[in-house]
Amino acid sequence: MVAELREKTGAGLLDCKKALDEAQGNQEQAQTILRKKLGGKIDKLSSRATKEGLIESYIHVGGKVGVLLEVNCETDFVAKTDDFKSFCRDLCLQIAAANPSYVRREEVPEAELAKERDIASASLAGKPAAAVQKIVEGKLEKYYSQVCLLDQPFVKNPDKMIKEILTEKVGILGENMGIRRFTRYQLGA
Amino acid sequence: MVAELREKTGAGLLDCKKALDEAQGNQEQAQTILRKKLGGKIDKLSSRATKEGLIESYIHVGGKVGVLLEVNCETDFVAKTDDFKSFCRDLCLQIAAANPSYVRREEVPEAELAKERDIASASLAGKPAAAVQKIVEGKLEKYYSQVCLLDQPFVKNPDKMIKEILTEKVGILGENMGIRRFTRYQLGA
Repeated sequence: MVAELREKTGAGLLDCKKALDEAQGNQEQAQTILRKKLGGKIDKLSSRATKEGLIESYIHVGGKVGVLLEVNCETDFVAKTDDFKSFCRDLCLQIAAANPSYVRREEVPEAELAKERDIASASLAGKPAAAVQKIVEGKLEKYYSQVCLLDQPFVKNPDKMIKEILTEKVGILGENMGIRRFTRYQLGA
Repeated sequence: MVAELREKTGAGLLDCKKALDEAQGNQEQAQTILRKKLGGKIDKLSSRATKEGLIESYIHVGGKVGVLLEVNCETDFVAKTDDFKSFCRDLCLQIAAANPSYVRREEVPEAELAKERDIASASLAGKPAAAVQKIVEGKLEKYYSQVCLLDQPFVKNPDKMIKEILTEKVGILGENMGIRRFTRYQLGA
């Protein structure tokens, strides 16, 4: 039960035990307790500078697709952990397989967004403005989940988005972390 | 002697033997004969389309510097040869070590060139225009040899420029080849 809670929340062992005690063994309640606790921790963590990390690469079998990636954390100590390294490898696989164009939403050019909004609202003439807005926002979310690495479903576990995996890792490793940049080459493309 | 000539010119075994015969064993003369012959061959080769090749990467020990590279050739057959693969690996090492900014001269922005020309000619006031031009051109050549991969001296053998190594490989493998693009990440830089 503790292991399951750790996996779900990314919280430390002791925090998970305490939360389960407090919730009298109720997983969902323990999660809520932890999320409140962890949320604050992550807010605090995410303001800390990340100047260390790793450059990682991946070449798909056959040498026609390759990825170069920079992931940052706070200390070289964490950068050298197996947990951090395997996270970097997973991200490289993700980028090779799911071909994102950007790391985060903020990087999508305004012109691209305007185009997506146009396409999304094209067939909605005559509907109430509130409904149109909701549908367009929904379609934009879908667009983000295709082109932004952080919003993509994780190829190894599509129930989670990459940003959720990142949050978990921040919780587990206890350091602020960031995916800084990546480059993906496809032969001749 | 044949091996030395092959290394210097990148020509095939038979061509080298013939040229040495024709030059009666004189290395320099044999080179001239081959360059004339090889030059034409390379001119012909360099107009052929290169749609195959490899994506190669290199991460320097410690994971603080990484390189992603695309090198093209004409056929997947050549892309799979050890010779082509080792050339790609050498290029990755070169980029990691010598940190070029561009593949070729044509990629240097005009503003950068103008700045370099300004710096080069700054201390030459009063000298004859012809001399100034010569000095400036010399300094520009030096600049290219620092920032352009093809003009850099090969770190494993600084007597040769990368473009000479490329020409040799084209001669040896008998296919047109091109260094298409590279990306170099340095942690936090």
